[in-house]
Amino acid sequence: WIFRVPTPLRYFTHLTLFLVILGVLSAAVIFLVDLSVHVLEVFRIWISSDNFGGYFVGFIFYFLTALILCLLSTFACQALGKEAEGSGIPQMKSILSGFYDRSKNALKLRVLGAKSLGLICAIGGGLPVGWEGPNVHIACIISHQLSRLPFFRFIRRDKSLRLQMIGAACAVGLASSFGAPVGGVLYSLETTASFYIVRTFWKATAATVSGALIYKLLYDTPLVEAFQKTSFDVGVVDPTELVLFALLGILMGCAGSLFVFCVHQVYRIRMKKLPLTNRYILVGIVASVAAILQYPVELFRLDPRMAINELFSPETLRVLNPLQVFLLLVVKFPLVVVSVGLPIPAGVFVPSFLLGSCFGRLYGELLKLIFGDIIVPGGYAVVAAASFTTGVTRALSCAVIIFEVTGQLRHLVPTLVAVLFAFVTGNIFNRSLYDTLIIMKNIPYMPYMRKDRTPDMKVSQVMIRECISVQEYSNAGMLQEILQAYPEFSCFPVVNKDGYLLGAVKRRTLLTLVATQSQQSSMISKVDVDYGDNEEFPASSGNMAYDEEEEEEEDSVHSIENSSTVSSNRNHSQWKTKNTNGGHNYLPESSLSHMEVPKDVSPLLVTEDTQLGRVHFLFVMLMPKCAYVVNGGKLTGVVTRLDIVECGQSSSTS
Amino acid sequence: WIFRVPTPLRYFTHLTLFLVILGVLSAAVIFLVDLSVHVLEVFRIWISSDNFGGYFVGFIFYFLTALILCLLSTFACQALGKEAEGSGIPQMKSILSGFYDRSKNALKLRVLGAKSLGLICAIGGGLPVGWEGPNVHIACIISHQLSRLPFFRFIRRDKSLRLQMIGAACAVGLASSFGAPVGGVLYSLETTASFYIVRTFWKATAATVSGALIYKLLYDTPLVEAFQKTSFDVGVVDPTELVLFALLGILMGCAGSLFVFCVHQVYRIRMKKLPLTNRYILVGIVASVAAILQYPVELFRLDPRMAINELFSPETLRVLNPLQVFLLLVVKFPLVVVSVGLPIPAGVFVPSFLLGSCFGRLYGELLKLIFGDIIVPGGYAVVAAASFTTGVTRALSCAVIIFEVTGQLRHLVPTLVAVLFAFVTGNIFNRSLYDTLIIMKNIPYMPYMRKDRTPDMKVSQVMIRECISVQEYSNAGMLQEILQAYPEFSCFPVVNKDGYLLGAVKRRTLLTLVATQSQQSSMISKVDVDYGDNEEFPASSGNMAYDEEEEEEEDSVHSIENSSTVSSNRNHSQWKTKNTNGGHNYLPESSLSHMEVPKDVSPLLVTEDTQLGRVHFLFVMLMPKCAYVVNGGKLTGVVTRLDIVECGQSSSTS
Repeated sequence: WIFRVPTPLRYFTHLTLFLVILGVLSAAVIFLVDLSVHVLEVFRIWISSDNFGGYFVGFIFYFLTALILCLLSTFACQALGKEAEGSGIPQMKSILSGFYDRSKNALKLRVLGAKSLGLICAIGGGLPVGWEGPNVHIACIISHQLSRLPFFRFIRRDKSLRLQMIGAACAVGLASSFGAPVGGVLYSLETTASFYIVRTFWKATAATVSGALIYKLLYDTPLVEAFQKTSFDVGVVDPTELVLFALLGILMGCAGSLFVFCVHQVYRIRMKKLPLTNRYILVGIVASVAAILQYPVELFRLDPRMAINELFSPETLRVLNPLQVFLLLVVKFPLVVVSVGLPIPAGVFVPSFLLGSCFGRLYGELLKLIFGDIIVPGGYAVVAAASFTTGVTRALSCAVIIFEVTGQLRHLVPTLVAVLFAFVTGNIFNRSLYDTLIIMKNIPYMPYMRKDRTPDMKVSQVMIRECISVQEYSNAGMLQEILQAYPEFSCFPVVNKDGYLLGAVKRRTLLTLVATQSQQSSMISKVDVDYGDNEEFPASSGNMAYDEEEEEEEDSVHSIENSSTVSSNRNHSQWKTKNTNGGHNYLPESSLSHMEVPKDVSPLLVTEDTQLGRVHFLFVMLMPKCAYVVNGGKLTGVVTRLDIVECGQSSSTS
Repeated sequence: WIFRVPTPLRYFTHLTLFLVILGVLSAAVIFLVDLSVHVLEVFRIWISSDNFGGYFVGFIFYFLTALILCLLSTFACQALGKEAEGSGIPQMKSILSGFYDRSKNALKLRVLGAKSLGLICAIGGGLPVGWEGPNVHIACIISHQLSRLPFFRFIRRDKSLRLQMIGAACAVGLASSFGAPVGGVLYSLETTASFYIVRTFWKATAATVSGALIYKLLYDTPLVEAFQKTSFDVGVVDPTELVLFALLGILMGCAGSLFVFCVHQVYRIRMKKLPLTNRYILVGIVASVAAILQYPVELFRLDPRMAINELFSPETLRVLNPLQVFLLLVVKFPLVVVSVGLPIPAGVFVPSFLLGSCFGRLYGELLKLIFGDIIVPGGYAVVAAASFTTGVTRALSCAVIIFEVTGQLRHLVPTLVAVLFAFVTGNIFNRSLYDTLIIMKNIPYMPYMRKDRTPDMKVSQVMIRECISVQEYSNAGMLQEILQAYPEFSCFPVVNKDGYLLGAVKRRTLLTLVATQSQQSSMISKVDVDYGDNEEFPASSGNMAYDEEEEEEEDSVHSIENSSTVSSNRNHSQWKTKNTNGGHNYLPESSLSHMEVPKDVSPLLVTEDTQLGRVHFLFVMLMPKCAYVVNGGKLTGVVTRLDIVECGQSSSTS
């Protein structure tokens, strides 16, 4: 930029540039992953064909490549980053619900490597897992890594914008998996736990449209088997058929929640009975079983999109017969259930589409036998694919995704009806798969709770009564001591000598203060602190952030093991242990003069009588790390984010 | 309900029932309005045909009926409720941004009458106004009135749920205007100012799908001219054509913002030069001009949907020729600009579709002359209709609405690209039409502001320093006095004798307390107050509400004039006037014993140093009426919602 553009316009152009790069880059990476999977698949088909000997030799090759690839996938995750295991959507939900600090390890560059490599090997190795969850994860990592570039630093600095970009990246990930820009945006809305920032909407759309353009460009090439557009008659769906579609929706809701139940049970049994099983043995067994079961019918081995295209077709089935469709359903259902919980990258949308369309096709064929040619079984396959996926993920946006995948709006109303019924039916039985995974894997998450679900408790029952604080007038020695004793606190409350809360101060400000005072040692002076160093983008200073410090993330590979395991409970335990020793009165010891501590943070205040449900709401909305408890103006304690989550969890399980 | 269902399920079934009734009822009312318009239209075509004499006699009849109907429309609004004037979407935006109390007059039943009657007469009278804004308003009124039924009282009681239902109603209103369930839901998301409650999503979808079912049922009858599905070839749009579509988007963005600019200027000039013009004269003049301009070409007189269907068709134009299309554009553009600001119900979507498709068709025909038969001008009309509407409303959901209207996804990517360009281009020039109308008409509204746009001020600069408070230990006399002096306050802060803030108390609790104490006069007792009377639906007590009082709305027709004009500034001025006299020390005067005042509300606290941008954020997120300012624990003042809005406005205009 040679000439200076006015700041708002510059902000806007930078942002747009970021979104376009995000969309294009994500779509390209996602396509590359898909292409690699396809190459592996072609290679395995070729190696297991009759060229090298009979049926049995082919099977041996097929089996061995499956085993090797799946173990490689496991290895990639273990070596490069365990955060790459699973779908990735649960972690993104955690980040979007305000646990950025706790889940940000999942956004490291090495996780991108693990995820894409693991995904290629897992799908290439024949495990029936989907790629859209991992793709969402990949897009989010790309977004995060892009925002670390100096050019886009304004995004990193603004907590709200950072979250919006994660949201936009979720949309891109899904949109670029299916070429579904609108569905992707809607899905990212539903991924958000409680409150969607409306300004994310155009950003997500801009990014997904960029992604969709690249998707169109790349998938129009005959390199990869893509979803085909359907070609149903344009005729109107008869209103009486709606009853059949609604019934299908209810069935799919039940099936979806059965799926979630099975995944949960399998995981629970594994954790209970086989807690020490080596991950390689686990993946190896599943890969072997999958290879044995999938080898006999060629279509089972191939890209699920081929089967889905066949099932969606308005004509009669050509490659498959109804028995094979039934077999596909019976074989794939347990395989998918087991695969989703494995320590490899594993999505659930595409297998859900497959299972749903199998079920729907069978349902449609059955209806065709009863009612005759009015029924188009392919239409039922489309509707069932959407509603089974909704039954599993509880995302209504599946309906929109399926329209964009099939390119036809003929089944608009039937699909919406079926999806709604599936959503409602599923919710009667259990939570969505992602919420189940979040609970299973202990991912920090703060959902929006209905008030009747929160326990009828007051803040005084959960707060930590000892609270570290800084005196209004302190000298450098006292401040130094506190700063050293609590290196993990980014913000301290400031009280006067009687314990009344005056405000709060950032760690950074205190550090500057101490440094300044040790220079001009024995002179009483009100120190002029530089309150912010981000003049270039005034918009950036954390609209959303209640405590707006931005930590520079350490990216050293060595500290991973520590930070990912310890940090999960560090903050919290230290509140409890250190504080009981420390107390909150640091009496003057040094001979340095006292000076007034600036109060540059406005802390979140609650009273001891405040109901916990209300505090929960505050934490959901404002996403602070902690809130100070005051009683008649005096600082009496602190409530952290984790206290609230734990309290909510203990109440919901009991 | 004979047998008792468990509460959560009952809550859920009641809610679903509400949503279905809302969808069905709204769609039915909206269809009835449409049908009435159609009947009027047929009648006027018949009366102005050659049956009764020549061309001139027909014109006289046409002219007179136009004048009468438009004046009737004005009369309906003036007599039944001025809130029915205009689109209605600005008021809904105001309510969704937290100004329920200030804009709830727009949700009265008589406004429903005014709106539907006014709309029928206005469109029937030939004014080129749309019906989707009024339909949104109608659906919101239906939602509000439904929630007043005893059976659905739990919705009224829960501030969050109430807002969610308004959101769902917005979706229904739009969805039932166009048979676009997904577009309606998306539009209601974009109508929300800042934060969309994700749980609204399925509710809105459930309601819109119910509405869409009724829409399909009713519009399949040949009673009313409806939007026709398009029948473009399924073939892929050439990527190089995208450049042309993007250019079209930019043009439409400019045209849309020109439209908004014109509407604003016309309104400003009217207010400045002709402030006292009688509304009937105004409407009469516009109606006359419209009648004169629209009479010569028959298609101009008819339902705009006929012209739109013609312009969207993939074949060459049959009824219209390009010159007529140009004429349509030139005649309708200024007419629509003027009509939108008139004191009648007036939407803007449908005229925008018409203007956009005219422009797009011309653009397409021109391109066809240049590039030959590759170009399908109808496709450009579709894309331009969406992107011009986006240029006017700045709602990306117009793209989805147009897909659902045309029933084809062929132009998915081109439309999204064009719509994004129109959105961005429009935003460079000015605000959306609705935001402009909000400012023009002084509707209270709290948008989400970027931090760099808020003034760099502290709370201490805007707060009202005198703040009414209740002493921790008070007797009935003191409480009575405060309650009588400030009848409009629903919540009072409680301080101890040194002025330290302890909490806050609801008006209702104080009333109970006073009543109880006057019974057992001279006995010192801690009164056991009934903290809530809504045991039936524990979920209902205001998740969203920071101050959770629910006022029973007075619906008397007599109090309208007062409440709508006075209440707009009542709260605010009284803080300022009464308080300076009153001060905050109510010394004990009565001989009654003192008792402890319960603190059943946890107030929103800020410190004097808190930056205004931050307080703005709190108000946007938590939607309280006021926040108390504390300094070192002492209550020193109060900030109201209006202080923040005024401060933001004064800074944005300067």
